[in-house]
Amino acid sequence: MHNDRMTTKVAVAGASGYAGGEILRLLLGHPRLRSGELEIGALTAGGNAGATLTSQHPHLLPLADRVLEETTPEILAGHDVVFLGLPHGTSGEIADALPPATLIIDCGADHRLQNAQDWTDYYGGEHAGTWPYGLPELPGNRVALRDASRIAVPGCYPTVSILALRPALAAGLIEPQVTVVAVSGASGAGRSPKVDLLASEVIGSARAYAVGGVHRHTPEIAQALSAAAEIPVSVSFTPVLAPMARGILATCTARTAASAAEVRAAYEKAYGDEPFVHVLPEGMLPTTGSVIGGNAVQLAVTVDERAGTLVVVGAIDNLTKGTGGAAVQSMNLALGWDETEGLSTVGVAP
Amino acid sequence: MHNDRMTTKVAVAGASGYAGGEILRLLLGHPRLRSGELEIGALTAGGNAGATLTSQHPHLLPLADRVLEETTPEILAGHDVVFLGLPHGTSGEIADALPPATLIIDCGADHRLQNAQDWTDYYGGEHAGTWPYGLPELPGNRVALRDASRIAVPGCYPTVSILALRPALAAGLIEPQVTVVAVSGASGAGRSPKVDLLASEVIGSARAYAVGGVHRHTPEIAQALSAAAEIPVSVSFTPVLAPMARGILATCTARTAASAAEVRAAYEKAYGDEPFVHVLPEGMLPTTGSVIGGNAVQLAVTVDERAGTLVVVGAIDNLTKGTGGAAVQSMNLALGWDETEGLSTVGVAP
Amino acid sequence: MHNDRMTTKVAVAGASGYAGGEILRLLLGHPRLRSGELEIGALTAGGNAGATLTSQHPHLLPLADRVLEETTPEILAGHDVVFLGLPHGTSGEIADALPPATLIIDCGADHRLQNAQDWTDYYGGEHAGTWPYGLPELPGNRVALRDASRIAVPGCYPTVSILALRPALAAGLIEPQVTVVAVSGASGAGRSPKVDLLASEVIGSARAYAVGGVHRHTPEIAQALSAAAEIPVSVSFTPVLAPMARGILATCTARTAASAAEVRAAYEKAYGDEPFVHVLPEGMLPTTGSVIGGNAVQLAVTVDERAGTLVVVGAIDNLTKGTGGAAVQSMNLALGWDETEGLSTVGVAP
Amino acid sequence: MHNDRMTTKVAVAGASGYAGGEILRLLLGHPRLRSGELEIGALTAGGNAGATLTSQHPHLLPLADRVLEETTPEILAGHDVVFLGLPHGTSGEIADALPPATLIIDCGADHRLQNAQDWTDYYGGEHAGTWPYGLPELPGNRVALRDASRIAVPGCYPTVSILALRPALAAGLIEPQVTVVAVSGASGAGRSPKVDLLASEVIGSARAYAVGGVHRHTPEIAQALSAAAEIPVSVSFTPVLAPMARGILATCTARTAASAAEVRAAYEKAYGDEPFVHVLPEGMLPTTGSVIGGNAVQLAVTVDERAGTLVVVGAIDNLTKGTGGAAVQSMNLALGWDETEGLSTVGVAP
Repeated sequence: MHNDRMTTKVAVAGASGYAGGEILRLLLGHPRLRSGELEIGALTAGGNAGATLTSQHPHLLPLADRVLEETTPEILAGHDVVFLGLPHGTSGEIADALPPATLIIDCGADHRLQNAQDWTDYYGGEHAGTWPYGLPELPGNRVALRDASRIAVPGCYPTVSILALRPALAAGLIEPQVTVVAVSGASGAGRSPKVDLLASEVIGSARAYAVGGVHRHTPEIAQALSAAAEIPVSVSFTPVLAPMARGILATCTARTAASAAEVRAAYEKAYGDEPFVHVLPEGMLPTTGSVIGGNAVQLAVTVDERAGTLVVVGAIDNLTKGTGGAAVQSMNLALGWDETEGLSTVGVAP
Repeated sequence: MHNDRMTTKVAVAGASGYAGGEILRLLLGHPRLRSGELEIGALTAGGNAGATLTSQHPHLLPLADRVLEETTPEILAGHDVVFLGLPHGTSGEIADALPPATLIIDCGADHRLQNAQDWTDYYGGEHAGTWPYGLPELPGNRVALRDASRIAVPGCYPTVSILALRPALAAGLIEPQVTVVAVSGASGAGRSPKVDLLASEVIGSARAYAVGGVHRHTPEIAQALSAAAEIPVSVSFTPVLAPMARGILATCTARTAASAAEVRAAYEKAYGDEPFVHVLPEGMLPTTGSVIGGNAVQLAVTVDERAGTLVVVGAIDNLTKGTGGAAVQSMNLALGWDETEGLSTVGVAP
Repeated sequence: MHNDRMTTKVAVAGASGYAGGEILRLLLGHPRLRSGELEIGALTAGGNAGATLTSQHPHLLPLADRVLEETTPEILAGHDVVFLGLPHGTSGEIADALPPATLIIDCGADHRLQNAQDWTDYYGGEHAGTWPYGLPELPGNRVALRDASRIAVPGCYPTVSILALRPALAAGLIEPQVTVVAVSGASGAGRSPKVDLLASEVIGSARAYAVGGVHRHTPEIAQALSAAAEIPVSVSFTPVLAPMARGILATCTARTAASAAEVRAAYEKAYGDEPFVHVLPEGMLPTTGSVIGGNAVQLAVTVDERAGTLVVVGAIDNLTKGTGGAAVQSMNLALGWDETEGLSTVGVAP
Repeated sequence: MHNDRMTTKVAVAGASGYAGGEILRLLLGHPRLRSGELEIGALTAGGNAGATLTSQHPHLLPLADRVLEETTPEILAGHDVVFLGLPHGTSGEIADALPPATLIIDCGADHRLQNAQDWTDYYGGEHAGTWPYGLPELPGNRVALRDASRIAVPGCYPTVSILALRPALAAGLIEPQVTVVAVSGASGAGRSPKVDLLASEVIGSARAYAVGGVHRHTPEIAQALSAAAEIPVSVSFTPVLAPMARGILATCTARTAASAAEVRAAYEKAYGDEPFVHVLPEGMLPTTGSVIGGNAVQLAVTVDERAGTLVVVGAIDNLTKGTGGAAVQSMNLALGWDETEGLSTVGVAP
């Protein structure tokens, strides 16, 4: 087991990126850090190795004395938990070099897809295999994660899209062709310097990208929804970059003959016991602003009767529930801790 | 005719709002203002009557000496052109009180819909009638606008949604059920002070509103698309407010069996001669940032073959092509001037 | 004493405003809430009384069942702690109607100033008196707050301005004429709907306001700095509104003949033991983004030798350390708890 | 002379940057382009050579057929006007290789400073010499620019800072120690991809940079202000990056014994005939939002009598009046055209 020592020691690889920074932000607020049961060990980076952590993340003041090390198996060894916030294609090798009992939680894409052909089509190269999927809200996943020592954290767009559409598909209430248009903040694109992610380009502008089903999160969404529907579900997915740092607002539609009451009942049943998924009361609509920094998923479920269309709007913080929060939630489960420790449903608003 | 005098005198009712301000911004750059053929006359307002124009619009420096008057037929009389930027339900009465030869260009919703029941369903009250629709890019409209003395400027969402989907529907290339998810800047919601439009609420947050087909622009979109398809088209429309002042990015989807080449050909044929509608070359995608302040419509046309879906992404400035630019374009046509005078396809970027 | 019962019951008056919302956000993360030692009682409002709390603050999901009550002494009675987030001029009356032992923490301005003439000059009307000033980082304040049952939370601009300049003045290192230009997010202006606070007006624009020393926080800054210098200090203060929701970045300057080393030494001595004030290492500069949601104050201390000027740049979150965080910090002190409980130096970034 | 041919042919070197894009945006609206007297010739770039212009500037649709060429003297030869939007240190060599009669307008810093030591201190390397300074609003400059074939466009911060403080210094109304804190949008930092200019880093955050007098625009401000005062003026300059794409708001202060009336009179006299500098009426304050895309400078002049301080707040668009607009204004002057052609005082707001 991972937690048979007094202290669980955690490493973060890719600590200078946004996923790594978010994991550290959440760990600094984790109650077991204060109690001494959790310890933050090695923090590693690629090009930023050698720099101080706070030169990269000046918001992580309690770690002001930390220096980023190289991302190598040697430095990551000796930890109970290793979070990976690395470019895709790199986590398999590191995982192979670490002991099987080490809990490895990969925020990258390498081990999310079940179908090797999907991997090759969307990412290229060879598929590294499939790990338990760190979305505890899907049937069966919570149990699987409690036994896992390898966990693939879902993509940010898939997290909200899957949660927004799964109950309707599982209940057979919509046609198996779904459309997702998801507005995201810029942090979802990572921290590499690129001209089209400069503030001057993003502020005051909205733009779609990866239009036409070519975004790599498309097969991940289809995989989970097809499992829910028990038939193949086709997904038209369009991501839109908006001038904000965090947050995803996904508008998810599909044709339906069901009534609003039927659909609401399915969602309330599906998520009634979930600590992080909130089906909003009628008349309320989610805003990304209200989930910033929190692990909540807010869903509004509506039927447009004129158009015969189910419209589910979902909001998450892409860095929290969409990445770092899901990683910590998965860690809590795998370590036998309460799933919600260190995570909040309260956003930082306005 | 409107232009048989030496000087065409223009009034703007509702000059303190965003539509009124945008019309004035464009008129100040109109070549016939400089040449003296165009003259800016009365500027009227409701609650702001008595204030200086630049207390409301400090960007309109050349009109710094102007004071806002009351919006009354008496003050609007004696002008060749009257632009109305008023709340819906008020323009009919003003129009009735002005001479039939006065060119009235209404930026409000009163005279856009053809079906009185649609009006009652979405706006309430009695339908004021239908005026020529100020979207010259629709077949037949350009001719009709040249003879018009009453013009209904389209809604901002309908402008981009209709232009994005009409060619595919007219050519029978998509199913007559369409989905539009359109991200808009806050100026589309007008200038009335409301808590949910405060900067603190909008910055850092995206939210959908009027979800489930209840937005008033829905029947307007359906009306034009059904005319194009020659059968009823159902429209699932979801507007999303994003943290920007201007711009609409509409992601428009429908199921298709057509190839990308067929679809592109239909769009290039439809818009090849249009001065303001640009079908972007393959690989380019529109950004609202590149159309700010200009009258351009940028469209990207894509087919997602896996999902059997046409995806057209369109960008406009909601205040220019979506309101004030369309109003000036319509004025130009109705006065027999070149349609593009005072309007640009160049945006202010970044 | 306030904490001689098992549970400390807290009310928030003005719970639908930004100050009230921030206090509740912090209380929801307070460790004594989870342990049952702290209980959230009445939540009151003015015009929003009768609405649910989450209709106003959808980010406060754990309080989704709460309804806002009227702000009356009767409803606020029976609580150990009452936070006031009310317009200025209203807290004195409420305080008078509550028992002397009730800990009242006023986020408004009524009881901050010591000089009645300053109050009259800047706020008008009669001065309500002076309460202990909830800035524990000032000499003597921490002790005073431990005994207090009435606390005036400092203004947001004064908090950062005072902390940025006090050590230099106390050490006699600068001339007693200081200049503060402070950039603030829009939440500092509160939640009342006003045209000039609309997202469309604020996004894409920076503007100074209350220019020429007329901002009401000016005498509050001067009061604390004069006390530090033991001579009157004149303050030129200009607030600037920038397109962000939270955060203040204050650039504070004064003429100096001191060296950078002397000045740094004074600041490090002043704040070396302070849990929330961080004098950044040379070469690092504060960003408001790195303190969002946290109670940290980040200061960079620089001497411009060519211009003979001390430049101290300070960053806080105006709603946390600038309002709600200071309120909770003051509560912790007055209740004899650890000052830092429920407060973090970690910001939510990016 | 430059304009003795029928058509003036213009090249832009560094056309893929923000300065180059802004010059092209303005040229596309220049009345002499439409009349055929002005022609846009070679557009060159560094790393982007070979790309289409609209791949870099999708807002410049009328130039959609243009391809970026290499920045070489050969390609720039044969033009009447060459705009340079290049990194500093590179324009001297290009200028030397072009004929003396070619009008070269340099948006870079190479030829702004008169003092070679200042150049070496702030930029390093050898000073390339001094060209006429493209700020026509300074005494004597307008005449000098009419004869110039080499023009140095002022820096963006100096433009607004100098215009904001010069009249008071020239009239001896303030002490010769001035403080400028200027909030700028991100486009002022250029278009090179850097982590700290990513949208995720800039949105939701304000930060000062180059604190302590080390920003390279400091000696440029001091040079012009010292000339105005006829004694050395010390400048404490702090630039602040705010989450917006364009615009500078400069808060400029200095100690004064003068009355508000005296100061206002000096400014009104200085700028009464200037087409682009607007001293706002009392009670109005500038916003960057109201000058976006226009060439206007808005100034508010206030005296804080309590603090004995002059406070002048100035707003410009850093890319228009701060760069590309000044470049076009200078071109107009040097070609003997009306100074205001193609430039507007009307901003794009909201």
